[in-house]
Amino acid sequence: MPAKNAFYAQSGGVTAVINATACGVIETARKHRARIGKVYAGRNGIIGALREDLIDTSRESATAIRGLLTTPAGAFGSCRHKLKSLEENRAEYERLIEVFRAHNIGYFFYNGGGDSADTCLKVSQLSQATGYPLQAIHVPKTIDNDLPLTDNCPGFGSVAKYIAISTQEAALDVASMCETSTKVFILEVMGRHAGWIAAASGLAASEEGDAPHIILFPEIAFNREKFMARVKRTVKRHGYCVIVASEGTQYEDGRFLSESGLKDAFGHSQLGGLAPQLAQMIKSELGYKYHWAVADYLQRSARHIASGTDVEQAYALGEAAVEFALRGDNAVMPCIVRGKGKRYSWSIGEAALEDVANVEKKMPRNYITRDGFGITDAARDYLAPLIAGEAYPPYKNGLPQYVRLKNLPVPRKLKTRFKV
Amino acid sequence: MPAKNAFYAQSGGVTAVINATACGVIETARKHRARIGKVYAGRNGIIGALREDLIDTSRESATAIRGLLTTPAGAFGSCRHKLKSLEENRAEYERLIEVFRAHNIGYFFYNGGGDSADTCLKVSQLSQATGYPLQAIHVPKTIDNDLPLTDNCPGFGSVAKYIAISTQEAALDVASMCETSTKVFILEVMGRHAGWIAAASGLAASEEGDAPHIILFPEIAFNREKFMARVKRTVKRHGYCVIVASEGTQYEDGRFLSESGLKDAFGHSQLGGLAPQLAQMIKSELGYKYHWAVADYLQRSARHIASGTDVEQAYALGEAAVEFALRGDNAVMPCIVRGKGKRYSWSIGEAALEDVANVEKKMPRNYITRDGFGITDAARDYLAPLIAGEAYPPYKNGLPQYVRLKNLPVPRKLKTRFKV
Repeated sequence: MPAKNAFYAQSGGVTAVINATACGVIETARKHRARIGKVYAGRNGIIGALREDLIDTSRESATAIRGLLTTPAGAFGSCRHKLKSLEENRAEYERLIEVFRAHNIGYFFYNGGGDSADTCLKVSQLSQATGYPLQAIHVPKTIDNDLPLTDNCPGFGSVAKYIAISTQEAALDVASMCETSTKVFILEVMGRHAGWIAAASGLAASEEGDAPHIILFPEIAFNREKFMARVKRTVKRHGYCVIVASEGTQYEDGRFLSESGLKDAFGHSQLGGLAPQLAQMIKSELGYKYHWAVADYLQRSARHIASGTDVEQAYALGEAAVEFALRGDNAVMPCIVRGKGKRYSWSIGEAALEDVANVEKKMPRNYITRDGFGITDAARDYLAPLIAGEAYPPYKNGLPQYVRLKNLPVPRKLKTRFKV
Repeated sequence: MPAKNAFYAQSGGVTAVINATACGVIETARKHRARIGKVYAGRNGIIGALREDLIDTSRESATAIRGLLTTPAGAFGSCRHKLKSLEENRAEYERLIEVFRAHNIGYFFYNGGGDSADTCLKVSQLSQATGYPLQAIHVPKTIDNDLPLTDNCPGFGSVAKYIAISTQEAALDVASMCETSTKVFILEVMGRHAGWIAAASGLAASEEGDAPHIILFPEIAFNREKFMARVKRTVKRHGYCVIVASEGTQYEDGRFLSESGLKDAFGHSQLGGLAPQLAQMIKSELGYKYHWAVADYLQRSARHIASGTDVEQAYALGEAAVEFALRGDNAVMPCIVRGKGKRYSWSIGEAALEDVANVEKKMPRNYITRDGFGITDAARDYLAPLIAGEAYPPYKNGLPQYVRLKNLPVPRKLKTRFKV
């Protein structure tokens, strides 16, 4: 009987380093050809499996696969398709098993956040229930840094670095001009429920009075009066005020300051436009000249300034996922374990998926200053090593040389089509 | 008689490389101590001269001055104070001469865009009229790339590189997810009257179908129907559409789109920003899910990804300004002259200020495709070398080590105060 094949899929919002994880999975699998046949990737994530639309990664050269290490976004495509519960939609789970069986897939590597950890767990359970042998390994990925058990999540360190640097740079700009021009600058960053990304901007400050002067976290209810008083005081004291605001900043009652009214496939509200809203609030109440920026996808795709630590960890987690599979593990997730010493160190640990799925890790209260507008030394100690190191991509003619895969399809074996 | 001192000021919006020019000016002046005494910088630009608020750059170490080469924004502060005509406000010009005389300043280096070239010219004329010996040299700087006579302007190449890379990266993100999520991504960039920055995004495309699919230039009147048809066709053909829009995009009659006062579903005025407006237009007419980003100050302060060519040229222009002064020139501007060969080369030329002041260089029509939505090969040939080369700043703990100067004041000599 030929060695079992592996299936790999990218899930949810992509990051600057999710392809580094793919690189780790594929390169490691290629070292064990006797036990892992081919690595098939889902075209556009899990829906590629449901549609039997698989990509044959064995058709890519070693150089192309290595190129994934320095290429942002999802090289095989990703999606926001969340599988419902087994009870609600058993058909989808059964379809997955059917496709896996047809292509002799014995390893399922699912690279995503909390929702995909949950899907991965259910696939594992169903495979056991139906007697189809499958090892399901979840590989963590999320810029939101909100997965439990792992010290941090791949993708976060790079966004954190981008936001810290962008805050530092834009603040120098504002400081240069504030005497006669812009007094308030607002940078809106991602983070619906957890303020990790906004928190990272705090690393830009190294001395008293440095920007950012105000950070808005989803974890801290927005209080307009306190906020305005702080803006005013900061401009009086330093001549300018730099604000970094999580898109998920909300009032005491849970209403987001900015809701576009749209919802995504998971039923989450689509946010955006908080920065202009805050700017207008400040203008009408305090009269200051303002500028604002919304980084949006720029922040999570900024491979050009990815964190060296993040790239290394993303790769190592992909590598570990395959090693876990080879030693027979199932329904687990490799995770980052921080060393105890004062000097930062990390190693790979293992978490059971039932402990991971659907748990959201928010910022601990002691990472946020008492006034709710800044980060504490505990937060700095946690965050600083995650943005350390530069891992520049190769350049040609002034532009990064990001790899383009061929993404050739695996011939279909099933007659049935499945609507997704 | 002691050697004459020099006065240097930064003017208008700052850039990622204006400090590299300051570095060129100061380092070159320091090599000629017999002829140039000290370099005084205006605190917050020209208003520092008017207020007799001068910074003594001789108090900075060689290391600190070298650090300017890799530090964005204006290390001495800048301002948007435009001197009116000599007839309208002779007092300001006379005050400048008074301050220069008090501090034995014989060289005036003014680092800015079109307005400051005009000021520089007038200061030169007044010094001649009043018999005060002063050499006034303008040093070009503007991200808008709209100065005449110079092939390009320092500051532009770095914004261009940042925008090209950001477009390339965000496009990979959108392409990864478009099957089930965002179909349209809009990046709003600077450029009120000239579309050079938006044009640079076109460098991100290397193959047919690559993003950006639509570029909006201030030079091309916005036609909603044509635009919508192109968005729709692009999404149908490629699955997604990336749009890069100049903030100065305008209708046939000259009205800016960002002033058009759209309202959201609740009847609230849409808050600022061209990108969200275009997004809403597309959503309501075509129904596509969208994301948008506004880079704002992030683009012009992004020293972390500055263009190597730009940094070199910015330094060389500062150096040349001092050399021009030493050879006795007045009312001139060093500029970039492009070599004639196929392989990119450049040298420093000299332009008379009366030919520079108040002329705005827009995109030539043959740099924009016939349909008005893209750039031509002529534009690519012009733009590509300007973003070439990476000139990374030094890093420590994951963050760029940008220099902070002491910026110690020169003791005042005048009794009169001047209100600015």
